[in-house]
Amino acid sequence: MQPIGHYQQVITDYFANATINKEPANLYDPVNYILSLGGKRMRPVLTLMAAEIFNADCRAALPAAVAVEIFHNFSLVHDDIMDDAPLRRGNQTVHEKWNINTGILSGDAMLILAYQYFEQYEPATFKELAKLFSKTALEVCEGQQWDVDFETRSDVSLPEYLKMIEYKTAVLVGAAMKMGAIVAGTSKENCERIYNFGLNLGIAFQLQDDYLDAFGNPETFGKQVGGDIIENKKTYLYLKALEHNQHKNDLLQWFATQPEDNTTKIAAVKDIFIATGADELTTSAIEQYTLKAFATLDGMDIESDKKQLLRKFGENLMLRKV
Amino acid sequence: MQPIGHYQQVITDYFANATINKEPANLYDPVNYILSLGGKRMRPVLTLMAAEIFNADCRAALPAAVAVEIFHNFSLVHDDIMDDAPLRRGNQTVHEKWNINTGILSGDAMLILAYQYFEQYEPATFKELAKLFSKTALEVCEGQQWDVDFETRSDVSLPEYLKMIEYKTAVLVGAAMKMGAIVAGTSKENCERIYNFGLNLGIAFQLQDDYLDAFGNPETFGKQVGGDIIENKKTYLYLKALEHNQHKNDLLQWFATQPEDNTTKIAAVKDIFIATGADELTTSAIEQYTLKAFATLDGMDIESDKKQLLRKFGENLMLRKV
Repeated sequence: MQPIGHYQQVITDYFANATINKEPANLYDPVNYILSLGGKRMRPVLTLMAAEIFNADCRAALPAAVAVEIFHNFSLVHDDIMDDAPLRRGNQTVHEKWNINTGILSGDAMLILAYQYFEQYEPATFKELAKLFSKTALEVCEGQQWDVDFETRSDVSLPEYLKMIEYKTAVLVGAAMKMGAIVAGTSKENCERIYNFGLNLGIAFQLQDDYLDAFGNPETFGKQVGGDIIENKKTYLYLKALEHNQHKNDLLQWFATQPEDNTTKIAAVKDIFIATGADELTTSAIEQYTLKAFATLDGMDIESDKKQLLRKFGENLMLRKV
Repeated sequence: MQPIGHYQQVITDYFANATINKEPANLYDPVNYILSLGGKRMRPVLTLMAAEIFNADCRAALPAAVAVEIFHNFSLVHDDIMDDAPLRRGNQTVHEKWNINTGILSGDAMLILAYQYFEQYEPATFKELAKLFSKTALEVCEGQQWDVDFETRSDVSLPEYLKMIEYKTAVLVGAAMKMGAIVAGTSKENCERIYNFGLNLGIAFQLQDDYLDAFGNPETFGKQVGGDIIENKKTYLYLKALEHNQHKNDLLQWFATQPEDNTTKIAAVKDIFIATGADELTTSAIEQYTLKAFATLDGMDIESDKKQLLRKFGENLMLRKV
């Protein structure tokens, strides 16, 4: 088993040389552009790691890892259109640099390209991977739709929110790891355990995102601190704070405003998150989901140094500041 | 072998009972809506026919036929956004009835749903079908991008135009038929021949569309006659007419105008199509591609009544008025 940096290098090297040289340029240039912007490459790294954890060479899992990363980028391109987002990873989004039609069509092409990477596997593995991929991709669409629906609903419950982030974010993390396990040809039980490890880690990851959006250090956090508050997003912090009758009306009122200058609003809402203990409840939920992920490791039939590596990865995610 | 009406009935019956009862409703309602609008269902009918031509029960090809029809509808939903089209099959387009974001996301879901229908086949067939499907789907995206590119280019050549309609329309007709052949487990040669039969018929079909758009009977033609002329579309008729130096400037001038009332423009452009013989050259090209399709039948290892049925289908397409 190699250190995590090794798997990151394999993925980085792959995408550094993965330019698609096909026509028409207006279809494939945006694909090459978004894939070249980098990002954490967390999902494909997990696919490679999972393969080695179950005793395969990580390179055997590279096509599946690439498929996962291309799918992730497809969903970013289409989500950025829906969210009218101008920036992605500090650069122009595809629909900003080109236009909405180009964003739609090159996104479609990426979804298809992702499926094509699985063709490098023989039929039985191909089917298992493609089936997991389709199920996951559809869940990601469903999660995105719930997210859109929640914007105009005032009665979103905490279980509904958790289901939404599970579908929109966590299932792909679980699937990324399970694909590595499938390629390695390990037991069904190990496949399910590594899926649940990734799923719970994915939920913890998204809750951490919610937390950092409000309480991250502006110096180290990549995005604008308070972005979710500005957009009146019903995050875990918000839904937890809303459970306190004492602050409910204040919070609802702040989330009904769209001030020119958001400084006061952000400070006031953060105060409510602290006063209601929503901040600590979120930190504690992150920890619980991480521990739930770690618990699935116990039943797994692998060497202890491998469990240690997965644990380390989870701890790093939980401690991350960006 | 059954008459064509039988296969149409099988498909119609299937989609009459195919409502997806899943949540979130805002994702699946548009899918059910567009699939319920009907249409000719030409592609899935061809999949079923191809299966029986190669001695399989057409019901064995139903999942593949459904996948092809769902993919076709996915491409309509996304294309209608790109073309800003208000109507589809006489009803509101998805992005008009809901909004653009819903059109993008439910389209994405349909592309994934299409792949899932192939899961009903065992791994070797699944892989063969999914591989052909991905290749074809990517070509359809490329064809759509060429079509978009051509709108702003003044130097589109006839071979480029033929390549565009081949990718945008004809490859899916070929693939629909080849899928029936794959399910039936016939020889590679027969698979290729039926693909080429469908491909050439698909090109003839699209050229016929171009022709009817200008010269169709307004009483029987479903769409507005002259629609391509109003939109200054570089069709086969236009590109052929443009080869005549005598009328070139007139035609270019008409295609540089966007009059309030298009009656005069449509009449003048149609006169040019007739004066240059572009109308007859188009009819003759339709015939040539149809004959090319029929020629692939000769080499096919099937009973003559089956060849007759395929020929009949092709002749009906060529004689169609809608």
